[in-house]
Amino acid sequence: MLSVHLENGRVEIRRRPRPRRRQGHALIRLITAGICNTDLELQRGYYHFRGTPGHEFVGEVVEADNQALLGRRVVGEINLACGHCDWCAQGLGRHCPNRTVLGIVKHPGAFSEFFTLPEVNLHLVPDSVTTEQAVFTEPLAAACEILDQVRIPEGAPVAVLGDGKLGRLVAQVLDAHLYGRGDKTDVRYDWVVEATGSPQGLAQAIAMTRPRGTIILKSTVHGTVAVDTARVVVDEITLVGSRCGRFEPALELLRQGKVRVDEMISERLPLSAAPQAFKLAARRGVLKVLLDA
Amino acid sequence: MLSVHLENGRVEIRRRPRPRRRQGHALIRLITAGICNTDLELQRGYYHFRGTPGHEFVGEVVEADNQALLGRRVVGEINLACGHCDWCAQGLGRHCPNRTVLGIVKHPGAFSEFFTLPEVNLHLVPDSVTTEQAVFTEPLAAACEILDQVRIPEGAPVAVLGDGKLGRLVAQVLDAHLYGRGDKTDVRYDWVVEATGSPQGLAQAIAMTRPRGTIILKSTVHGTVAVDTARVVVDEITLVGSRCGRFEPALELLRQGKVRVDEMISERLPLSAAPQAFKLAARRGVLKVLLDA
Repeated sequence: MLSVHLENGRVEIRRRPRPRRRQGHALIRLITAGICNTDLELQRGYYHFRGTPGHEFVGEVVEADNQALLGRRVVGEINLACGHCDWCAQGLGRHCPNRTVLGIVKHPGAFSEFFTLPEVNLHLVPDSVTTEQAVFTEPLAAACEILDQVRIPEGAPVAVLGDGKLGRLVAQVLDAHLYGRGDKTDVRYDWVVEATGSPQGLAQAIAMTRPRGTIILKSTVHGTVAVDTARVVVDEITLVGSRCGRFEPALELLRQGKVRVDEMISERLPLSAAPQAFKLAARRGVLKVLLDA
Repeated sequence: MLSVHLENGRVEIRRRPRPRRRQGHALIRLITAGICNTDLELQRGYYHFRGTPGHEFVGEVVEADNQALLGRRVVGEINLACGHCDWCAQGLGRHCPNRTVLGIVKHPGAFSEFFTLPEVNLHLVPDSVTTEQAVFTEPLAAACEILDQVRIPEGAPVAVLGDGKLGRLVAQVLDAHLYGRGDKTDVRYDWVVEATGSPQGLAQAIAMTRPRGTIILKSTVHGTVAVDTARVVVDEITLVGSRCGRFEPALELLRQGKVRVDEMISERLPLSAAPQAFKLAARRGVLKVLLDA
């Protein structure tokens, strides 16, 4: 099978044997996958990544313990939790300290004709949701995660900083004002989401936030970020780190057509063109690049 | 009158005319004042400060509109709010955008034989509270502010990082485990207070915090701090900036003898020895240095 290999910043196509599934895991045939900013960060050295990336996908189940999954279109939560620790017991396998993460930490990713995931991670794609829409489930779940973390009062103005893929999803979910990186505004907000994917984004977010306001941090930037913590202290600003979310609310938004994602697809390329697709995805102004198996 | 003057990092004693009080302001004779880390940060260039510092004090009211204040021992809230804006209307004059701040922003401070403050900022010191205890009201209020910002579940373990003046007060208020800067521990906490006063403190606090945990940021450090924001995002950590607090709960804790402060006084010097007192206060291991008028 064809599989993307990332190492020392280089994206290559390799031929590998099809993976064997473990008990409780499904073998999935890729239909389409999305390139995420995190994949580009992995390319830049985040997590010292080496292997097959890819964690946004729609696939078809070809082998599984649960026969009801066979032949079905699925999306999958990316954290492979141990199922036994305190975090897992709380339903927060996303924070399980023993977890591996699809295409990010010690579990081969979805930029591959076939890959595996635990069956408990899988969600069926509703028939009314297209594959092109469903491939946004994972980033949309990350956008919805904000609603699970903070209680934004009804009608409170929200700013989203960063008009990339994630920023646009967050802006739709929160019905927020969207600002591009570097956009200037004198308006100050009680609620600001930092989704620039840039080390400079947080300083800009802090400048847009009112005293006692809250910034939700979405960018995972490789390395450290310079923060004027004195301003955070003096203005008593709250920063909330926010990562993956539950898939259910995201699939429900897609099913109800409440979030528009189709216009965010900039390009579709075959999996074998992954090296070019990564270059394209890193260009300014390019939104989602899909890899079709 | 004698007055401390701080400029370009130099602490001097100057002779100046006694200030005139405005209507609504009291003229206060200093009894004793405390040197705070913020004063040392001002010396290092924070706020480009130039003038008379000092914001922790106990004084005697010598002139005021309200005759009941005359001759009384008082402490005072340090933010001089406009009284007309939205923040002031919410009772949050501490965040009034038009505020000046005693000894920090555009209002001459308490390291002076006489100084002024709005009468609404003043609180009478209960008779049972000594002057040496009452001079801790302002930093103790800053410690109590945490309780106004976050709801720490009953019995939840809390770590305070930084065993300086503020850290020790916070540890007493929150009944927390106190760690010195650089102390090593494998224990991870859901609640960590960063009070090291050091640019390195936040990284150490992040390392001590469990996923989904909360860090309360108390250090106002001049300049920027390098933060591994990816860790904050991945572990969904919340950072809460925390500054000044209401005086009422602090005075009540002192009145009830629930917080021990006397043992935190390292040295008492006359106001005229302020240059030496600042040097002493900056030494490692030295806690509160008082300036007596």
